[in-house]
Amino acid sequence: MSELRKDPIVDRWVIIAAERGRRPSDFETTPEPPTSEGCPFCEGNEATTPPEIYAVRDGTAPNTPGWQVRVVPNKFPALAIEGELMRSGFGRLDRMTGVGAHEVIIESPNHFDDIPAMSTDHVALILDTYAQRTEDLRRDERFRHIIVFRNYKSAAGASLSHPHSQLIALPFIPKITREKLASAQEYYRGKERCIFCDLIEQELSMPEQERVIYCNDCFLILSPFAARFPFSVEIYPLQHCHDFVEMDSSTRLALAEALQFIFGQYKNTLADPAYNMTLQTAPNTSPRPGHPDYWSSIAYDYHWHLEIFPRLTKVAGFEWGTGCYINPVAPEDAARYLRPESWSPGANEQ
Amino acid sequence: MSELRKDPIVDRWVIIAAERGRRPSDFETTPEPPTSEGCPFCEGNEATTPPEIYAVRDGTAPNTPGWQVRVVPNKFPALAIEGELMRSGFGRLDRMTGVGAHEVIIESPNHFDDIPAMSTDHVALILDTYAQRTEDLRRDERFRHIIVFRNYKSAAGASLSHPHSQLIALPFIPKITREKLASAQEYYRGKERCIFCDLIEQELSMPEQERVIYCNDCFLILSPFAARFPFSVEIYPLQHCHDFVEMDSSTRLALAEALQFIFGQYKNTLADPAYNMTLQTAPNTSPRPGHPDYWSSIAYDYHWHLEIFPRLTKVAGFEWGTGCYINPVAPEDAARYLRPESWSPGANEQ
Repeated sequence: MSELRKDPIVDRWVIIAAERGRRPSDFETTPEPPTSEGCPFCEGNEATTPPEIYAVRDGTAPNTPGWQVRVVPNKFPALAIEGELMRSGFGRLDRMTGVGAHEVIIESPNHFDDIPAMSTDHVALILDTYAQRTEDLRRDERFRHIIVFRNYKSAAGASLSHPHSQLIALPFIPKITREKLASAQEYYRGKERCIFCDLIEQELSMPEQERVIYCNDCFLILSPFAARFPFSVEIYPLQHCHDFVEMDSSTRLALAEALQFIFGQYKNTLADPAYNMTLQTAPNTSPRPGHPDYWSSIAYDYHWHLEIFPRLTKVAGFEWGTGCYINPVAPEDAARYLRPESWSPGANEQ
Repeated sequence: MSELRKDPIVDRWVIIAAERGRRPSDFETTPEPPTSEGCPFCEGNEATTPPEIYAVRDGTAPNTPGWQVRVVPNKFPALAIEGELMRSGFGRLDRMTGVGAHEVIIESPNHFDDIPAMSTDHVALILDTYAQRTEDLRRDERFRHIIVFRNYKSAAGASLSHPHSQLIALPFIPKITREKLASAQEYYRGKERCIFCDLIEQELSMPEQERVIYCNDCFLILSPFAARFPFSVEIYPLQHCHDFVEMDSSTRLALAEALQFIFGQYKNTLADPAYNMTLQTAPNTSPRPGHPDYWSSIAYDYHWHLEIFPRLTKVAGFEWGTGCYINPVAPEDAARYLRPESWSPGANEQ
């Protein structure tokens, strides 16, 4: 019989239907077109993107070759950086102007580069770029939340195959973030403890650690108890921290290693599937003079993390109509497939 | 500049990025394989499905030809009808056994039949079948909610192209239903009015009715103010009612007409796209002896409706990470494309 499991943070039931069970090789993936022709993100094509906002360069001029990571505005932005933020209502309807930022983080000058194959230092540089851009955008009081995400391959929504992430700054706190913040705050208010820290502790304290995939000095990769999608993972810092920009350089290196590990496993175990990665961090807590705000005040109860899931199953009427998902792979089985060969319970304990 | 709009029921912001704007012909659709070979849902192949649960027949024997609508268990059910519902917790984690029902409503004996081309009476018969199955399953006290949905074409998750809907009975109230119920209840508690009724009234009272697509004696088809997906629609009964099973036969005919209209418009205006339809109705209010329950007690504040959306855009990292969607077609433009040719504001007013 299948099993129903509840995500304790966002209060969502998931159907784990493992008897429909499938092995990693049962999921099909589509190869990407193997050409870099006409790619605007490649080194040498800097003139074909909007002017860069940020780049890691050794003294070369902006918008020329000679960079390691480069950030440009999205050519087709969902939200515009210029313009006044105007909020209005009409009866029960609320609207505001589409003010925000939509940037592309080009992760490498090389079209065929790939996170597992990069140097760990380079991956850490990408993570540092996420933080630099986030900090810069948080200075803009219009922006209440910044989300960084990575769509890998066209089945996951990437329109270009050159390695890149994106960042969107929003003039509101999005629904999922509000749910997670509220959940963390409610728990903290009652117990003076972080709900994420307690869940991490619970997973690590089980004798078999059956949902633990990987652990290094600073980060844990979990197969979530109520995972919605087969082989999805969550990456948590072991130390409580609400905001990813507070990572120091050695912590960033540890996260870079964890990402290289899991994306390498996806490549090896699942035949390089399309995936989405989203960075779940606290909202902008920059002071808004004279306007202290609820969400900022509870941001410190949060525990930032990454969510990653391969795009292997279809989301259809049932999922859209209920918010409940059917996962054909038990999270414990997914963990077994995704672990390093050398894994044993407790091996990574501090 | 794009615009941000909020769904007042589920508290979700949507980015209406109409300047990325696209016309109906800009969205690609994929044709389905034009064969009925080996289809288990076709008349004559009754022996290839699990034994039928329900059928509309004129005296013919079960599991033989001679039916108009036929309901069978899903061969690969997400939840099993047999078994005890056991709930348990471990620390912060909740689980229960995967008990429920998963049925297929085969809408016609003819593989190539299609809702816009059927007789309106036949469509009403399908709707009556939804209600019959829902009422029957509600007698089972294990089932807290029943969701009916329709996945049209493989891009929307349909594994067979023979016209069919599905029904899943759940041992819990799903997240989206709880959110909508809570929102309706909170509004009702404060105002003694239904939030859905007020929104319908607001849309109909605007001089241009710019989001009204269609209206008959009993139902309104709206292009939602904060639509997540291009050309998505919601269908509301004009009279307040929490539960779709309470429709009488003339109301069912009016809904059948509305469905034939909108699916016909999808075919004509959008080149027959894949779509999902979900029926959003109140949870099971059947008395549980000695155990009155919160969700049942607020069910009457709800206003049932249908949500329908073509699968034209990709859901990627941003949407998964925020719960915020980017809609490239303004709902007012979508309404303009989907309206009947003869439409004028107020023409359908009661």
